[in-house]
Amino acid sequence: MTTANKLGVAVIGAGYWGPNLARNFRASADWDLRAVCDLDLDRARSVAGDGVAVTTSLDEVLARPDIDAVAIATPARTHQAMAMPALEAGKHVVVEKPLADSLANASQMVRTAAERGLVLMADHTYCYTPAVLKIRELIADGSLGDILFVDSVRINLGLIQPDVDVFWDLAPHDLSILDFILPGGLRPTGVAAHGADPLGAGRPCVGYLTLPLGNGALAHVHVNWLSPTKIRQMVIGGTRRTLVWDDLNPQQPLSVYDRGVDLADQPSTAADRRDSTISYRLGDTWAPALPHREALGQMATEFAACIREGRTSRTDGESGLRVLSVLEAAARSLQTEGALTRLDPEQPAVPVSPIVPTRKVSAA
Amino acid sequence: MTTANKLGVAVIGAGYWGPNLARNFRASADWDLRAVCDLDLDRARSVAGDGVAVTTSLDEVLARPDIDAVAIATPARTHQAMAMPALEAGKHVVVEKPLADSLANASQMVRTAAERGLVLMADHTYCYTPAVLKIRELIADGSLGDILFVDSVRINLGLIQPDVDVFWDLAPHDLSILDFILPGGLRPTGVAAHGADPLGAGRPCVGYLTLPLGNGALAHVHVNWLSPTKIRQMVIGGTRRTLVWDDLNPQQPLSVYDRGVDLADQPSTAADRRDSTISYRLGDTWAPALPHREALGQMATEFAACIREGRTSRTDGESGLRVLSVLEAAARSLQTEGALTRLDPEQPAVPVSPIVPTRKVSAA
Amino acid sequence: MTTANKLGVAVIGAGYWGPNLARNFRASADWDLRAVCDLDLDRARSVAGDGVAVTTSLDEVLARPDIDAVAIATPARTHQAMAMPALEAGKHVVVEKPLADSLANASQMVRTAAERGLVLMADHTYCYTPAVLKIRELIADGSLGDILFVDSVRINLGLIQPDVDVFWDLAPHDLSILDFILPGGLRPTGVAAHGADPLGAGRPCVGYLTLPLGNGALAHVHVNWLSPTKIRQMVIGGTRRTLVWDDLNPQQPLSVYDRGVDLADQPSTAADRRDSTISYRLGDTWAPALPHREALGQMATEFAACIREGRTSRTDGESGLRVLSVLEAAARSLQTEGALTRLDPEQPAVPVSPIVPTRKVSAA
Amino acid sequence: MTTANKLGVAVIGAGYWGPNLARNFRASADWDLRAVCDLDLDRARSVAGDGVAVTTSLDEVLARPDIDAVAIATPARTHQAMAMPALEAGKHVVVEKPLADSLANASQMVRTAAERGLVLMADHTYCYTPAVLKIRELIADGSLGDILFVDSVRINLGLIQPDVDVFWDLAPHDLSILDFILPGGLRPTGVAAHGADPLGAGRPCVGYLTLPLGNGALAHVHVNWLSPTKIRQMVIGGTRRTLVWDDLNPQQPLSVYDRGVDLADQPSTAADRRDSTISYRLGDTWAPALPHREALGQMATEFAACIREGRTSRTDGESGLRVLSVLEAAARSLQTEGALTRLDPEQPAVPVSPIVPTRKVSAA
Repeated sequence: MTTANKLGVAVIGAGYWGPNLARNFRASADWDLRAVCDLDLDRARSVAGDGVAVTTSLDEVLARPDIDAVAIATPARTHQAMAMPALEAGKHVVVEKPLADSLANASQMVRTAAERGLVLMADHTYCYTPAVLKIRELIADGSLGDILFVDSVRINLGLIQPDVDVFWDLAPHDLSILDFILPGGLRPTGVAAHGADPLGAGRPCVGYLTLPLGNGALAHVHVNWLSPTKIRQMVIGGTRRTLVWDDLNPQQPLSVYDRGVDLADQPSTAADRRDSTISYRLGDTWAPALPHREALGQMATEFAACIREGRTSRTDGESGLRVLSVLEAAARSLQTEGALTRLDPEQPAVPVSPIVPTRKVSAA
Repeated sequence: MTTANKLGVAVIGAGYWGPNLARNFRASADWDLRAVCDLDLDRARSVAGDGVAVTTSLDEVLARPDIDAVAIATPARTHQAMAMPALEAGKHVVVEKPLADSLANASQMVRTAAERGLVLMADHTYCYTPAVLKIRELIADGSLGDILFVDSVRINLGLIQPDVDVFWDLAPHDLSILDFILPGGLRPTGVAAHGADPLGAGRPCVGYLTLPLGNGALAHVHVNWLSPTKIRQMVIGGTRRTLVWDDLNPQQPLSVYDRGVDLADQPSTAADRRDSTISYRLGDTWAPALPHREALGQMATEFAACIREGRTSRTDGESGLRVLSVLEAAARSLQTEGALTRLDPEQPAVPVSPIVPTRKVSAA
Repeated sequence: MTTANKLGVAVIGAGYWGPNLARNFRASADWDLRAVCDLDLDRARSVAGDGVAVTTSLDEVLARPDIDAVAIATPARTHQAMAMPALEAGKHVVVEKPLADSLANASQMVRTAAERGLVLMADHTYCYTPAVLKIRELIADGSLGDILFVDSVRINLGLIQPDVDVFWDLAPHDLSILDFILPGGLRPTGVAAHGADPLGAGRPCVGYLTLPLGNGALAHVHVNWLSPTKIRQMVIGGTRRTLVWDDLNPQQPLSVYDRGVDLADQPSTAADRRDSTISYRLGDTWAPALPHREALGQMATEFAACIREGRTSRTDGESGLRVLSVLEAAARSLQTEGALTRLDPEQPAVPVSPIVPTRKVSAA
Repeated sequence: MTTANKLGVAVIGAGYWGPNLARNFRASADWDLRAVCDLDLDRARSVAGDGVAVTTSLDEVLARPDIDAVAIATPARTHQAMAMPALEAGKHVVVEKPLADSLANASQMVRTAAERGLVLMADHTYCYTPAVLKIRELIADGSLGDILFVDSVRINLGLIQPDVDVFWDLAPHDLSILDFILPGGLRPTGVAAHGADPLGAGRPCVGYLTLPLGNGALAHVHVNWLSPTKIRQMVIGGTRRTLVWDDLNPQQPLSVYDRGVDLADQPSTAADRRDSTISYRLGDTWAPALPHREALGQMATEFAACIREGRTSRTDGESGLRVLSVLEAAARSLQTEGALTRLDPEQPAVPVSPIVPTRKVSAA
């Protein structure tokens, strides 16, 4: 693919995540990195590389007709302020997680993108890792059966963030993964959140989320900044098989267990059910090999494909809204001693017209 | 110690746990196993060993003056019916966990034992394992500092019990351990419980307990019958150190991490706190060697010591009440979508006169 | 199966291993435990159980016509002195590993059993574990392809034995397993042994065995009494797949890796081979579920089947000879600074007439 | 430190390792990277960074008076051809491992550096990792006591190298580490090597080295290109404690076990020794925290310090010779079926005049 066929992109924000975005756009066959924008020009320069424009002006970036899309990697509280003018300038937008700092701000972004037929994508990077892509595939093809429960643990000795609690810092990872792998996305019937701030840091440092999924299934998330050991593990129990993802085990990240409990479908009486209809499977374990691919490169490819094909991504703006919807419900639950905050799984997170990009973009 | 100085004991119930009790009493320097009682005499005989009486009659056991104590290992729903006549006959009593099938029944047992100056002990066996004894010591001597959080996971592919849910089946272990190791015992300010029965088994098979401990600390318990992998891990975070107990790692069950987050005591302003008063310790890890001793033997020794010294045990009847109190509160929480059921940590689980055995027993 | 159809067996030696043998014979549908013989009658009694004769006299045991077989669990230096009269009395014999304390003594036993058409079996218990049976099956059915290398590690902080070195104490396990799983048994072309006695204990406490297997394949065994960590791991590399057995991982003891290196069969030139004919497979991992069965019970079943069917076992006397042959060659290598002691893989360890039991035994 | 006080360095070779060297010299407070030399100028440019000269001519580099030292990262077979003119031009030299492709070539380099008072250092990078530095400290301060045995395993599915076998590819890591941590360096009394080429790749792909260390101690190294699992573990047994280094466990790379076997010093008779003088310690385990520092940065610092202070490094040319001496002895052992190739631990690897740099260099 020659440069002429590539899409032009600018990276906004050259702090922690921006360099990773820039590196992957540069290495992509789909993209031509054309500008890096940061208030600190030196930082922008160190990220940009040869032949890439640097600027402190977002307007300057948005005015360039050869820039089809922008990737926003600024702090969450500025996402909406960056994304709105970009969308209004007709640019496709990908935004570092979380999509915005509030459901209302994110909704405005989603609505605007939909109205203008632009791709708005959340950079839920984890979803593009080989492990999560494989998990999604195994659920989609029925290998696990119906989902019974999901237990996700993401704990380590983490930096106590100055402006967000442990839920907003870590749980977007778990929630965006759940949204990506569950058929139909993450649509719990409610959220209960329990947090602790035992050090008096001013915000929860230990947190638990409970998410009833309908049909008796349950998802649960444990996030923790105070654990001396690092654990990143997700157990996904299904009617057919159960999967364990250990993100810190490079030699065997995914294990699929053909083990579980079976109940016969139609026990004639309660006594039957109790006595005779429960059986246990104790089958083999299977650890699929995973390719070695950088997640962000996959994300860049998907972003380009969505633009070219005029379609949404599984980590589109709606996905970002579902994640924010749970985070906001969790915040309300925290204020009521963990009472269940109900959500309507049938209702979209925000009522908008169907969000389907209609303007296909052919690279300049 | 000659037999003449030993205490006489009878084991009531020769099913799953009774043989273990009988074996340990037989091997004990403190005890002389004098009878085994079971409706199935053959089973009783197989447990009793040479020279030990077998009977189907509890009354017969209780009538013997050379029997100082009974160990009850019958189903939980019969504990009170076995323990009450034993106490009324002046026997000291140890009861397999849980102490009874309800707080009300257990309270009656505790009250009666107190009134008669008898030792009533819960056989919270885990508390007498070398690991838990060490954890208790490390908390008591200040090695961990103040407790900030406890996260306990006890999951595996387990038998779906016909008459109890996963909370009553597995959580008594976690709760009795918490009661044993926390200074002052397990006295949460409330309980929130979330459970799932995704298979339609008729009772929760996946469960989470959240227990605010006061002062911002939090305990959390995950019990699960549907997990293909077995995990038994407890993380105990303290202001000075954090301990991880992995019950399935025989080579290093306890790890004590000198790692954590420190907040300076008196930040003058919120901004100070935010910016400058958080520091991170990344010190060494220490894994104490543990003796190889059978827990049940230690329990038998403690039971005898309590009787001889006229004192209560850390796993006394009150401890059993505290565990039941949490289980019952959890059941109420489950019925209200996980709403926090408040408990009064200052109030004893049941109002009784001070429970101190007053009748020292010298072995016959 | 009624007692009338069972084979009668006596256990000789009631020390460390005898009780396990007695327990498994008692529980077996094939066997009737009829006597336990030990110089210490009390010990014999504690092992025998109801209705089983106890005696200090081997002659008395051998004189009984209702005893078809004896199981010898005395120290290795007495194996031959126990087994020879038993064979001469027409009893089938199973002997705790190693078969004898020298190749010469063991050869006499093997020859005598062959001449009299009796079953002589080595109790290589490990070979009857579910894991080793599965490994053998996976090699036999071609799942691993041709064997390229075997690396076995068996180290822990072990008791320094008073009369044998670490090779004779631990390596019989590894060698008998190799003999069991390798097609055709363990027939190395030589043995090199390296040992260390760094504490001055009077015998090697750290040992390494190198066993060229022919066709370029190599087996290697590391045994060690001085390691603070316990490792029991065997890696078996094959042309098709590689298997790792971790005997201390109860959750996943066997892992079969579809990973490896392939060389094309007929590289036309050396340069081709170097450059283009090497490829790497990075496929899935598979962990077969294993049944939960006690190895010694399987051994007892196999012993009975060999007697009834007049056939040899995979852990027959010849197998015991092959293990002893390697141990003796290792001892010679140790005396020559680890020089390779050649063995002739085609030659039987000891020249004897074909060892096929000819006398089928129908249980009395 | 201003540039004026920095030492000038050129990196020779911009292939696999050169970029790492260049990056660390650039980031160092001691060094000023002044040139990168490679036959492929584009590659040199991509490594050099702003303001650093690139050239295809080694002579050009050596002619510059502002270049005090060169770092050679070319293939091993060219090390001597690069290092000799550099030393003759008065430059200090650091060379990627192994020091040269033969002991003879390396000896010439060592001799020349000594004669000219220049620092010649082997880039044994592993020695500058926090883990190995800590191991060396724990041995040097007596924490482990006298070394009894070392067992090193370095296995994975590795690239089959076109021109070196698995010993020359992987064992230099283990040998250079041993040389670094053992008091007095790696001075075995002999080397026995066993290798296997079961695939017919033309060179050993599985290898074992046995190195008697004197005083009954033994080191053993297992290197393997065909293992589907990756293991990098070193067990170092000492009279006081034993250390296990698991290089793939980021959470607990070093474990120091206060476990072991003690023999009383002066058993009066052999019988005493056998019976009563062996005791077992089963103490705590301790996992020291390690700093997070890049090894190559530490190496660059040490190189500069050696030059400034006119001293040798623990990974000096002599160290490189000791590693090559073992590799060459291993190659001879391989040709004689693994027979022990004797080495004289008292004799320097090559007879040269004392190698102490005498020319202190003050940075230009």
